[in-house]
Amino acid sequence: MAETNRTARLSSRPTGMLQRDNFEIASEELPEPGDGEFRVRISHISLDPAMRGWVNDAKSYVPPVGIGEVMRAIAVGTVEASRNSKFADGDTVTGLFGVQEYAVSDGSGVIKVDTSKAPPERWIGGLGMPGMTAYFGLTEIAVPNEGETVVVSAASGAVGSIVGQIARIKGCRAVGIAGGAEKCAYVTDELGFDACVDYKADDLRGQLSAACPDGIDVLFENVGGEIHDTCLSLMNFRGRVAICGMISAYNATEPVPGPYNYRSILVNRLNVRGFIVFDFISQYPQAAKQLGEWHGAGKLKIREDVREGGIDAFPDVLNLLYTSGNFGKLVLKV
Amino acid sequence: MAETNRTARLSSRPTGMLQRDNFEIASEELPEPGDGEFRVRISHISLDPAMRGWVNDAKSYVPPVGIGEVMRAIAVGTVEASRNSKFADGDTVTGLFGVQEYAVSDGSGVIKVDTSKAPPERWIGGLGMPGMTAYFGLTEIAVPNEGETVVVSAASGAVGSIVGQIARIKGCRAVGIAGGAEKCAYVTDELGFDACVDYKADDLRGQLSAACPDGIDVLFENVGGEIHDTCLSLMNFRGRVAICGMISAYNATEPVPGPYNYRSILVNRLNVRGFIVFDFISQYPQAAKQLGEWHGAGKLKIREDVREGGIDAFPDVLNLLYTSGNFGKLVLKV
Repeated sequence: MAETNRTARLSSRPTGMLQRDNFEIASEELPEPGDGEFRVRISHISLDPAMRGWVNDAKSYVPPVGIGEVMRAIAVGTVEASRNSKFADGDTVTGLFGVQEYAVSDGSGVIKVDTSKAPPERWIGGLGMPGMTAYFGLTEIAVPNEGETVVVSAASGAVGSIVGQIARIKGCRAVGIAGGAEKCAYVTDELGFDACVDYKADDLRGQLSAACPDGIDVLFENVGGEIHDTCLSLMNFRGRVAICGMISAYNATEPVPGPYNYRSILVNRLNVRGFIVFDFISQYPQAAKQLGEWHGAGKLKIREDVREGGIDAFPDVLNLLYTSGNFGKLVLKV
Repeated sequence: MAETNRTARLSSRPTGMLQRDNFEIASEELPEPGDGEFRVRISHISLDPAMRGWVNDAKSYVPPVGIGEVMRAIAVGTVEASRNSKFADGDTVTGLFGVQEYAVSDGSGVIKVDTSKAPPERWIGGLGMPGMTAYFGLTEIAVPNEGETVVVSAASGAVGSIVGQIARIKGCRAVGIAGGAEKCAYVTDELGFDACVDYKADDLRGQLSAACPDGIDVLFENVGGEIHDTCLSLMNFRGRVAICGMISAYNATEPVPGPYNYRSILVNRLNVRGFIVFDFISQYPQAAKQLGEWHGAGKLKIREDVREGGIDAFPDVLNLLYTSGNFGKLVLKV
């Protein structure tokens, strides 16, 4: 058999930013499905902030990727060589297929998607896990009331862009935080947020304060660090904070202090909750249906940042997430 | 009239620890009640950690004490010269009477107490606001389930001592944190906690880890700082954190970083909530009744640390709270 499977296996654990030599990228034999299994020819790999945490040898919400294992990743691709009656050759599917060109699966956690409604890469982005993360974090954890002000960091990103749009659908004032004038203009002009604050410009607190004349009722946090801290200082009485991610700290090599405004939790009687999308597995179908409806009705604008280069371009492309180098949901084309 | 009223009025705002010269302590004319009012001859003044915050000119849950005003304080005393039909001369009452010997009141927020059931100073301690703070924080905010591990800091203090005892009543493992062997022995031997960790001894994390073999499900925080941070690192999945106070930071003159283990909120999907007892005003009668029943049944051990010296001894006595100099609920005898 001439075809091979290009794979990225974790070869060592990084300190700080991921390096190319933390991975062994090689061509392996094409995997053959056994009974009840099928092969997926991967077209796009989702690059997500959480991936940095998955390669740490530390307690987290999923076990770390083991040395020698294919790097964990959500991906989308086409079924072939199926020996599973539930998946036919030609089906487009998403799942935890890893950073490689081909994966073999028994169908666990695999979802069929409809490419007539959205292109494949969107099913691992705004209509996939990032979209559902936004949906559950906002509607189940933060629970904004109509007329409240919702602030979301990384507002032009995969999750943040959906958070603000859902906040608008729910009748809230949506305020984004993003890096640079171009991203901010996208957030307000394309996504329809009420305001967007540029954290790369001066006086973050003054900008935020002006963008939130009635204070912040709900904070959906993707970034952490100074941005989070500043938001905490503007929270209203009985505000809610959904902690979805803290990308600013994922590559830290020294301990990172918590927010200096931590005491705002006490003074303002905040409710601060952490969550991840996997907590809501039983409600995925409901969320997917709702997101699909909003998307179909033109109420959810979604932008992917699709990068070329295949398996060999990982981890350089992944690192764009931690340097704000992407614009929209970051996807690696295989 | 020969009698006078000794008062402590705020004369300047402190930086760091309170100083004697932040207050003007003087003898004033005895106040006379008007129609519908009565005078209270104060016997004991409650000294509480929150008092340090009340003299800062900063947004908090109550307005700051103004310059020239009598220092705010909860106190207990005896009604005299009553011109209010609801309060008779000789009644023992608690209320926000301030740091002074006599107060005039129209009865707003004043509660009559039964000194046949407990001495006056207990009604501003374990059976008063601190007891209710413990009650609401544990039963309404943290909500431990039977068999869970509850950790409380400042465990020998007015609030912490009650928290652990209620946790035991609710069928939980109660673990205290206190300063020094004597306080720790009191917490386990007298109050009946399952364990108590000495934060002044070495290896706080190792001690806590040993005292909580199944991790921490509920953290009731009175202290903040390093103690809080260490506890966050041992929280279980879906743990709850009730933020009641952060006494370690109240005298800070520089910004205080939040917990380095802040990310535990995300990884362990914690629910962190701030509260103060005033949030539960409508439920005070229910809490007072329950605390009184437990106390009457011998299930709540309460210890006061009553200091002599009268009004002139304030603020020196108050500062004992911030140097761990008290042992039990700190009360100033008038």
